Parts: sequence; structure tokens; C-alpha cells
Amino acid sequence: MSLFDTLVKYGMPFVPKTIVGRVARRYVAGDTLDDAVHTLRALNDEGAMGTVDILGEEVREPVKATAAVEEYLRLLDRIEDEKLDANISIKPTMLGLNVDQSLCEENLLRIVARAAQFNNFVRVDMEDHTCTDNTIRLFRQMHEEHPTSVGVVLQSYLHRTIADINSLLPLVPNIRICKGIYREPREIAWKDFETIRANFVYATEKLLSSGAYVGIATHDPHLVWAGMQIVDRLGLDHDRYEFQMLLGVDPELRRVILANGHRLRVYVPYGKDWYPYSIRRLRENPTVAHHVVRAMFR
Amino acid sequence: MSLFDTLVKYGMPFVPKTIVGRVARRYVAGDTLDDAVHTLRALNDEGAMGTVDILGEEVREPVKATAAVEEYLRLLDRIEDEKLDANISIKPTMLGLNVDQSLCEENLLRIVARAAQFNNFVRVDMEDHTCTDNTIRLFRQMHEEHPTSVGVVLQSYLHRTIADINSLLPLVPNIRICKGIYREPREIAWKDFETIRANFVYATEKLLSSGAYVGIATHDPHLVWAGMQIVDRLGLDHDRYEFQMLLGVDPELRRVILANGHRLRVYVPYGKDWYPYSIRRLRENPTVAHHVVRAMFR
Repeated sequence: MSLFDTLVKYGMPFVPKTIVGRVARRYVAGDTLDDAVHTLRALNDEGAMGTVDILGEEVREPVKATAAVEEYLRLLDRIEDEKLDANISIKPTMLGLNVDQSLCEENLLRIVARAAQFNNFVRVDMEDHTCTDNTIRLFRQMHEEHPTSVGVVLQSYLHRTIADINSLLPLVPNIRICKGIYREPREIAWKDFETIRANFVYATEKLLSSGAYVGIATHDPHLVWAGMQIVDRLGLDHDRYEFQMLLGVDPELRRVILANGHRLRVYVPYGKDWYPYSIRRLRENPTVAHHVVRAMFR
Repeated sequence: MSLFDTLVKYGMPFVPKTIVGRVARRYVAGDTLDDAVHTLRALNDEGAMGTVDILGEEVREPVKATAAVEEYLRLLDRIEDEKLDANISIKPTMLGLNVDQSLCEENLLRIVARAAQFNNFVRVDMEDHTCTDNTIRLFRQMHEEHPTSVGVVLQSYLHRTIADINSLLPLVPNIRICKGIYREPREIAWKDFETIRANFVYATEKLLSSGAYVGIATHDPHLVWAGMQIVDRLGLDHDRYEFQMLLGVDPELRRVILANGHRLRVYVPYGKDWYPYSIRRLRENPTVAHHVVRAMFR
């Protein structure tokens, strides 16, 4: 168990929000849309693409979901106006997935339709396993209407992922493959580090060799290498896939990927609701957890 | 950081040259051409081939490069006279790579032409990343004149290596693949042990399955196994590849390779300028570094 997990287990209030914020801000572009635009501009200048996530999750009231839709529409307009090389990423629970599936569907369709109008693209993020079935269903619905403007995410730590790929392949889907960051029960998820890695490689190869567009989302240099090796072996053009990384994580690896001629997209979150996202980032990064502890005892 | 690196960092004079010499001499055939001939004879008797390297690197004055050429020509003549099963390996910086590229080219061409005359072979060694582009260019120039008498080296720790293989494959080249031994920045080199290994395997398979002749240069038993498995799977004749090891490193593994019916070539350095070579050998071998320390405190 990591130091950070220990802190969480023995009482999260123990880590003051101000300190999480101080350490975690490097993972977030800022509070406002302007902050996101600023960050995207810098990434584009560096040769990287962006995908913008408005922070927030698990909406309980429909009116909050509608507010999120409006904000995402403004974001799409702004990306178009500013000619930024960026698409968007959305957590379905923020659009009401856990309130009402059909409400969430309507909300998401408004956003995907706007993206399609701009030839832009919406990545439907994947959350914990209670959302997997509904999120894939949502993706299929969006894909029927706007096949080139929407993609989904699969997580290599889930046992079901290879079966999900098999059932989605006939759509020639756009898939982000990642390891997965939620705490999932052993009944449904691989727990061993090397198994999750190997499943990531297997899933990536399966998708790429079947013609799917793949977002290879990882900060693990070994998986970056494996991704490069798969696209080399398959002789793929560089517009058939992209690497993806989170803002604030390992900018040096980002430059390595770009320098080797691959496309790279950076996940750029912004907004006031940065706490749960930052907690997940801290949890996966033991080094940062140590910073938190040090900051607390200073 | 290894014990040896610590010694280097906190002042190399701390490790007296005589002690480095005492421990490192097992990596070097001796000071003279006669010493090299003696070592080659023993290796040939054991069923192994040789590749002779005259110690020295980073020549600053053209006259020194010319002297190195003369010495390499004498070496080729001697190998021919003595009917030894051995070719030669050359560091381009010793022929003036960092003084003048065209001078280096002329120098190397004299040696390759002599080797071609004897149906012998010149391996152009690869040094640190500042030499990679120029060394590959040199190899291409030599290959145009004497396609079967020259080969080059690629290092699996470099990000660029797979792209280099792709661009060299049309030549059906003779390539030594090794992990790489120089300290390279993370911007250009894989740092994780398993990734460097996996890239070594991928590169070897890519080369062998495309018809290149490969020198599989490693002391890592896992990579020896991987090499054997690739040539078995591809059903290759044993004259399509060779294993390569350095003099003084793991003679038992050498016997294992030969006993399994594979060809093996041993890198045999000789000459008075043994210090930088020995330092690299010591650096990659922590066991030996301990011997150094023990020798110092005895």
C-alpha cells in the first residue's frame, strides 16, 4: 500500500485540501476556459494536440448536467474560434449517467452533434466499473449518429476488455486504451502489474491490427516502446493512432514521443472542481504523495 | 548509481591506474599485435571466431589517424598470413571522425578496400550518440564500394534504432546489434532494463526476418536465449548470423553458445591505450568494480 493510500485509509481530512491543491495544480490548466486555451496554445506550439476535460463528475441534479452541457458547447466553440488542435473528453456521470440514462444520452448527443458540425471529436471517458456497460451503450448510440466524431475508452486492467474490443471491432471504433486508475475488485480486474501491462499491449495490437484508431494512453515508458514497436511492425501511417498523456505528467517522455515522429495528445483538465481528479493523480504517483507529506509537516 | 560510478564521480584518480590495469587486463589481449594473434589462435582452437579492435579513440591530429590506418592494415595482413578466422572492428573517432568527416572516410576506405581484397570484413563500431549519424553515413559510403566487406552497429537503448533499421534494410546490411554501453540522456535513450531488452529482441527479429546478417552481441543469457529462439523460429541457416561476446566476459556462456551449434565471435582488443576501454568494461560490471575496491584496500 502506498504512502498516499495509507493517508487516505487513516482519514483523508488529515491531508488538508489546500495542500493537495498546492501540489496537484500542475495537473490542472486552471479554473477557467481561458486557462485551458492558454495551455492548449502552448501544447500546440510544442507540436502536441490536446483533449480538454471540464472537471466535475457524478452530477445528481439534471440541472447541473445541463450546465455542464452548456459549458462543453462553449468549449467546442472556443476551440473552433481559436483554431486550436484539440478535442474534448467527457465523463458521462457529469452529464447525468447515474441519474437517468436517457437524459445523459440527450445531453451527450447535443455535444457530439456540435463537435461533428466542426469536424471535431468527443472522447467519452471511462469511469469505474459501475459505469462500463452504460458508457459503452452511450458510445454505440453516439456512434450510430456521428460515427467519426466520437470515441470511447477501454481499460486494460478489466477482465472484460478483450471481449469489449471483440464486440466493438465491427464499428471500426476510435478507442483510447489505458491501464485504468480506479480501485476495482479482484473479481473483475487484473491486479498484477505485468499482467495489466501485457493486456494493454495485447489490446493495443488487437485494435490496431483490426483497423481501429487507437489512443495509446500511458506514461509507462515500456508501453510507449511497445506501442511504437506495434505500429512499426504493422507498418502503420502515423495518422492511424496517437499517444496520449496527462497534463503535468512526465513532459520529458512527451518530448521523446514527439521527437520520434509520433502524434501526441495531452489531456488538459480545467475548472473549479479539481479535488477528486487531483486525488486520483496523487494516488498513482508515490513521489507526489511524498511531497504532500512533506508539505504537511513544514 | 553503481559503486564504480561513485568512485568515478568522486575523483577517478582515487582508483589508481595500476589497479584498473591489474583488474582490467583480462579484457585486453595485450599490448602488441603478437598478443592479439596469440589470443585469436586460442579462440579459433576453441571453435570461436575473432574480431580485433586496436585500442584507441578520439584522435585529434590527422597524423595519429594515419598511424591507426597503418596499424589496421598490418593487422589485416597478419590475419591473412596466419590464416586466422578473424575480422576487424574500428572506432571511427580513431580514424578522425571528430576531426574531419572526409578524412575519416578516406582512412576507413583504405582499410575496407584491403579487407575486401582478402575477402575479410570490417565492423564499424558505434560510439556515443554524437557519432551515430556520421557513423551510419560512413557505413553507407563504404557499403556502396564494398557491400560484403563492411558492417555497422546499432544499439537497442537508442529510441532511433528501429527507424535506423528501417532505413538501412534496403541495403540488406550486416548489423551488430547490442544494448549500448555509453551514458546517454533520457531524451534519446530507453532507460528501463526490460525495455532495452525487448527492443534488442525486436530489432534482432526485424533484421533477421528481413534477410540482414546479424551479429547478436550480448552477454545477457536471456538475450542469448531470445536470439536462439528467433533463429529457430525463422529456420535460419547458422551462417546467417553469429553471436558476439567480449574477450574476458563470461567464457562459460561462450562455451554454451558454441556447444549449441551457433557461431560465436569474440571481440579481441589489443594495444597500449587500454584505459578508456577498461573503464567502460568496469562500469558495466559491478562485480568487477568490487574487485577494484578490494584491490585498492589491500
